[in-house]
Amino acid sequence: MSSRTAAGVDPTAPAPVVELVGLAAYTELAEFGLLAARSVDAPDLATRQALADGADRALARQRALFALVSADDGVVPGVVGATVMAPFEHALADFDARTDTDDWAEGLLKGVVGHGVAQDFCRILAGGLAGASGRAVRKVLERPAPGPEAGADAGADAEAIWLLARMAAADDVLASRLALWGRRVVGEALGVVTALLGRHPELVALTAEAATRLGAELPAGQDPESTVRPWLVARLTGEHTRRMDRMRLAA
Amino acid sequence: MSSRTAAGVDPTAPAPVVELVGLAAYTELAEFGLLAARSVDAPDLATRQALADGADRALARQRALFALVSADDGVVPGVVGATVMAPFEHALADFDARTDTDDWAEGLLKGVVGHGVAQDFCRILAGGLAGASGRAVRKVLERPAPGPEAGADAGADAEAIWLLARMAAADDVLASRLALWGRRVVGEALGVVTALLGRHPELVALTAEAATRLGAELPAGQDPESTVRPWLVARLTGEHTRRMDRMRLAA
Repeated sequence: MSSRTAAGVDPTAPAPVVELVGLAAYTELAEFGLLAARSVDAPDLATRQALADGADRALARQRALFALVSADDGVVPGVVGATVMAPFEHALADFDARTDTDDWAEGLLKGVVGHGVAQDFCRILAGGLAGASGRAVRKVLERPAPGPEAGADAGADAEAIWLLARMAAADDVLASRLALWGRRVVGEALGVVTALLGRHPELVALTAEAATRLGAELPAGQDPESTVRPWLVARLTGEHTRRMDRMRLAA
Repeated sequence: MSSRTAAGVDPTAPAPVVELVGLAAYTELAEFGLLAARSVDAPDLATRQALADGADRALARQRALFALVSADDGVVPGVVGATVMAPFEHALADFDARTDTDDWAEGLLKGVVGHGVAQDFCRILAGGLAGASGRAVRKVLERPAPGPEAGADAGADAEAIWLLARMAAADDVLASRLALWGRRVVGEALGVVTALLGRHPELVALTAEAATRLGAELPAGQDPESTVRPWLVARLTGEHTRRMDRMRLAA
């Protein structure tokens, strides 16, 4: 595996680790934005605070990711962040435009579903990383988001999931609308994943490695991307269904 | 001084401390929202990250404030927060409506100016608090916002101030427009402070106490509010002028 030398980045960090950390960190920044935006226009103070705390935990996880590839402890995390996230700068612009909504609950669900798919994708990719640095990335991605306010099992979207489940339970019409919206958002999110695979061959390689390690029997074929994509989409869809179930929304 | 017993709040915390912590914590939540909103629609990734980090530090300070009045270490901060912030829930709704803007730089300056006035107000009020708990509040309010990413002297709005100063330096027309906008925002912010004094007599008492401790010679008069208000507004305006100077904007 090659390594890269870039501002603030540990030159001994394997390239796939730097790549995945960049994608995962960008995902956390996006989740920060989606939760924070719904905090700003939340219907009451308790909700506003709850979503702000979730957004905060997304940034705490982002810092833990940056620390994995920082050249030294004293480095300004912003420098590392800019370097590793740069390849993904516009990765979600299309997703954002296609899932634009003025509805508060839909906006919140967009964060939960979109970020959920992105995080699952990163966790699967991490399964393809070798060695100690791979284990370190998996440890950060698999553990709950850190943060002084988080319960032991709280992800950044813990409050959002709880709020959506409560709203859906109280309003059947809303629950149906959110279920429909969730299907649309997950379709767009899977489209982002497919587009990322098309632009980043190293992510295809990582996915194939992860699939092999997980014992998947991929069909033999010359194009790794078309071989690995159906397996990945099936796994991501399965996780999405479980997530919607937890909110008691039909996937 | 009386004390209050409320969910999660230390029953031995003096009422003025609980009151001021609530106001200051609400101020930090508002600052989180203003910075996060400008992070979400920032022009580039570096700006987006910088403002997210600032928003994060606002919540870190908020947690430090909640800790000052929490009944015990194991308490869920959200409970304390909801209790102490409740009296101020709609304190900024009017300010927000009157300073609504679609312009990114104006929105950012609104955060810097509005939050600046609110923080200065809280710091002045803290000067009126007695005893060890008063010193503890002053320590949290006077030190830079905590946070793993913050430089030693970074407030939550450090990145915002730097960005505005850079934009204003590069564009005279923008600088003039922002200077004008800053005057409007500070006027509305001072209006919020005046309204708070009108609704919360205990804040008037704290301001009077702080003014006395600072050696102010207030005119003798029977109405404490009208006595203390001009002194307070003059101090807040002075701080505002210094803040605008740092961004090289005419106050």
